[in-house]
Amino acid sequence: MQELKNAIRERGKVLSNDVLKVDTFLNHQIDTELMALVGKEFAARFKNDGITKVLTIESSGIAPSFMAATELQAPLIFARKKKSLTLTDNLLVSKVYSFTKQESNDISVSKDFIQEGDRVLIIDDFLANGQAAFGLIEIVEQAGASVAGIGIVIEKSFQEGRKKLDDAGYRVESLARLHTLNEGKITFVDELVSSHS
Amino acid sequence: MQELKNAIRERGKVLSNDVLKVDTFLNHQIDTELMALVGKEFAARFKNDGITKVLTIESSGIAPSFMAATELQAPLIFARKKKSLTLTDNLLVSKVYSFTKQESNDISVSKDFIQEGDRVLIIDDFLANGQAAFGLIEIVEQAGASVAGIGIVIEKSFQEGRKKLDDAGYRVESLARLHTLNEGKITFVDELVSSHS
Repeated sequence: MQELKNAIRERGKVLSNDVLKVDTFLNHQIDTELMALVGKEFAARFKNDGITKVLTIESSGIAPSFMAATELQAPLIFARKKKSLTLTDNLLVSKVYSFTKQESNDISVSKDFIQEGDRVLIIDDFLANGQAAFGLIEIVEQAGASVAGIGIVIEKSFQEGRKKLDDAGYRVESLARLHTLNEGKITFVDELVSSHS
Repeated sequence: MQELKNAIRERGKVLSNDVLKVDTFLNHQIDTELMALVGKEFAARFKNDGITKVLTIESSGIAPSFMAATELQAPLIFARKKKSLTLTDNLLVSKVYSFTKQESNDISVSKDFIQEGDRVLIIDDFLANGQAAFGLIEIVEQAGASVAGIGIVIEKSFQEGRKKLDDAGYRVESLARLHTLNEGKITFVDELVSSHS
């Protein structure tokens, strides 16, 4: 998605070979116009998949999912993060380890909002090692619902999450795929392909 | 705002004389269509106030602010919550006590995103005792920016927050004002006025 790639180049900041900071438009300050385009792009890619719910995770997933849910005319649900849950009545729960923060969180969704028969589109801001995505998948499958696909704003293709999701047979739609961030330079996967052709 | 009041009556759940649960459309599952109307209503009320930034707080403030920021053509910034911050370089920080959770959180915004001269519209999902609103005000004023007003989705008028904000001279626009939740019955402030007239 070209507008997103432009934003990453012009307003993102490479902090290391692994870390791209995009708090100017995605996860602290939000460019709502760009996030509306992102949401519409997800909706377009999944419009024939019978989506009944859109599921994301607080906080940074909410903005890019907002317009996707609107266009797909499906409710948006955000999973909550907590260090650990003591009361888990009526909750779908899974554990997610964050390599960045080096801590585990329980993520949870009320059983009221995802049910057997739901076709769920999962959306998240980043895909790196796949921990959050697999946590959300686990929640959907606990409910007896099915995962229609996973929409990702920015995929770090040099980490293992994408491959693991592909190998497990899930459909992944990433709007920007980072091939590398080495030496402060952003290279996208599709540019790499075209430079080799 | 009638659509919001209908949603509160039809899809909200009164848990006690103090607590209204609205996780069916506002703070866990999100009715994005309704939240877009909410955002547009905030934008309409503040359209002539020269708003340069919309500020909210994660996570439940993001959805109702999304369309407000879009319509006002202003960036949306969400303050982050953390138990306590160790590194506060380049951050505007204030302390917010939650009576519900009985704990204090630091809320923070990067200095990059609110600056002197900004006219900030603060939006939050609930106004109860005013802790979060005053925390966000403190952040805006630390930056040398000014608070154009405070947009609230649901105000618990029977708690002290509204009065404290009024007394401090801030403009508050609440889209639904709960007079009482006593005995499981929802009464709005404007209904009360009309029933007395």
